[in-house]
Amino acid sequence: MTNLEKRLSSHAAFIEAALERQLCGDILTMESPMTQAMQYAVLGGGKRIRAFLTIEFCCMFGGTPEGAADYACAMEMVHGYSLVHDDLPCMDNDDMRRGLPSCHKKFGETVALLAGDALLTQAFYCIGSHGTEASYAANSLAVRALSRCAGALGMCAGQQIDLAMNVQNFDALKTLHRLKTGALMEAACLLGYYAAKGTPDPITEEKLRTYAQNVGLAFQIVDDLLDVNSTAEMLGKPIGSDAKNGKCTVLNFLSEEEALAEAQRLSREAAKLFADYENSSCICQLPMYLLHRKK
Amino acid sequence: MTNLEKRLSSHAAFIEAALERQLCGDILTMESPMTQAMQYAVLGGGKRIRAFLTIEFCCMFGGTPEGAADYACAMEMVHGYSLVHDDLPCMDNDDMRRGLPSCHKKFGETVALLAGDALLTQAFYCIGSHGTEASYAANSLAVRALSRCAGALGMCAGQQIDLAMNVQNFDALKTLHRLKTGALMEAACLLGYYAAKGTPDPITEEKLRTYAQNVGLAFQIVDDLLDVNSTAEMLGKPIGSDAKNGKCTVLNFLSEEEALAEAQRLSREAAKLFADYENSSCICQLPMYLLHRKK
Repeated sequence: MTNLEKRLSSHAAFIEAALERQLCGDILTMESPMTQAMQYAVLGGGKRIRAFLTIEFCCMFGGTPEGAADYACAMEMVHGYSLVHDDLPCMDNDDMRRGLPSCHKKFGETVALLAGDALLTQAFYCIGSHGTEASYAANSLAVRALSRCAGALGMCAGQQIDLAMNVQNFDALKTLHRLKTGALMEAACLLGYYAAKGTPDPITEEKLRTYAQNVGLAFQIVDDLLDVNSTAEMLGKPIGSDAKNGKCTVLNFLSEEEALAEAQRLSREAAKLFADYENSSCICQLPMYLLHRKK
Repeated sequence: MTNLEKRLSSHAAFIEAALERQLCGDILTMESPMTQAMQYAVLGGGKRIRAFLTIEFCCMFGGTPEGAADYACAMEMVHGYSLVHDDLPCMDNDDMRRGLPSCHKKFGETVALLAGDALLTQAFYCIGSHGTEASYAANSLAVRALSRCAGALGMCAGQQIDLAMNVQNFDALKTLHRLKTGALMEAACLLGYYAAKGTPDPITEEKLRTYAQNVGLAFQIVDDLLDVNSTAEMLGKPIGSDAKNGKCTVLNFLSEEEALAEAQRLSREAAKLFADYENSSCICQLPMYLLHRKK
């Protein structure tokens, strides 16, 4: 096991425990179908890439995993809410997620919709209730970044483009992924930085955004390649589902070889951005690691 | 026209212009069905009670309407999102809202769901992008208050209880209204205070919460009374719809006279809370004014 794999594993366990505290502890004293659906949607699964980025960048910039935990939870909650709502019948109508029934298949549409709303809201509570007075600046910056990246100029705009299904060329597909996937990766990286530093810094922020967008697009390209080359068992969902749903993928515009080469190029570019920083080895290795994932 | 009526009218016009800037300006450069639905859901309607509370408390505590505008926009966006999602077929399945087709009747379920998500997110952007460094503390406090009041321990919890439809007594109904309506009123009042002061103050915050809960519950009681005594034309929706939908109202537990007396008591209690404050006349008159509304 490489050092990166060790940290991926330890951060994932760390964030799982933090999410359990946020979603099962005192905060949610009212047990209900909604709170159960919130837990179902967020706990016990996923690669935790966004939380990893938040924690790892926080550490790279001099902070600790503990100092990044609340923001990392916020990232996973927003990611979780987006999956719950995207899976709904009026959206992508997906019955399976991570090898299990999607949230609305298990709890019904009403509860799933409500749980998604509550998760999105709870994400901002994680940020707004983080730390003491000394964290106010970081909290305010984190809220601005996350809301910009997740909203009508970010992830929601990406979903709108995805639903319109009129992606005509590779540039348009890149725009879709920049908004639907990259934007939330941006937020994850920025929140790690804010958790450590608590001040804006346009040059660093721009680097973080570029890193995030490269990793995000490479991630989506690999997703598209896995969708045709993996197995349903491995992915936890039917393979070839993109084509079946009429979704445009990178393979509409590039051959598999070209797509892989593009993902490699993006990953190399990302890795270079923080090569000169201390304690950046995991940040630099992550893009190439994600390229070789099997699910 | 009383001074209160003048201020209700001028604040409503002021917040309408602020919302237009937030929802039609540079921020939403990508015109799409989603952005149109966001505008449809929030602009050009409603009593703007929440925005009024935010602006008026900000002024009472020494701030200005301009200083409260971003937070007041946030309040109206969260309120707007909640109506869009509550009207969806899997929730209350309401076709009409304010005398017009509800958002999903006009734009379809998919776009309405997405627009609601984006409005909730944009509300936090309004707060997180407010002001300069001097506003970071207020922004952080405002995010915490709004997310607590709107989320799984506030408005979403209220919606969950409402959907479960097992309200057995007046106390349970009060809990429902405290969460579904009162919590957002709380946030509106607290955000006005934070916009002016930017520091926590438990005693003032508790007073604001009590005021908000009294006004919120009185508001709901009047809603229930109007639902049986008003006209569809006046309300912009069919009368008697609560009973038709099997919703529990205050009239399940109290006579009309008892209900009105309770609303009057709550309004008087609210008015008393800030009677000793300077520039509090509108805050003190508002509860009684809302009691006599016709829609």
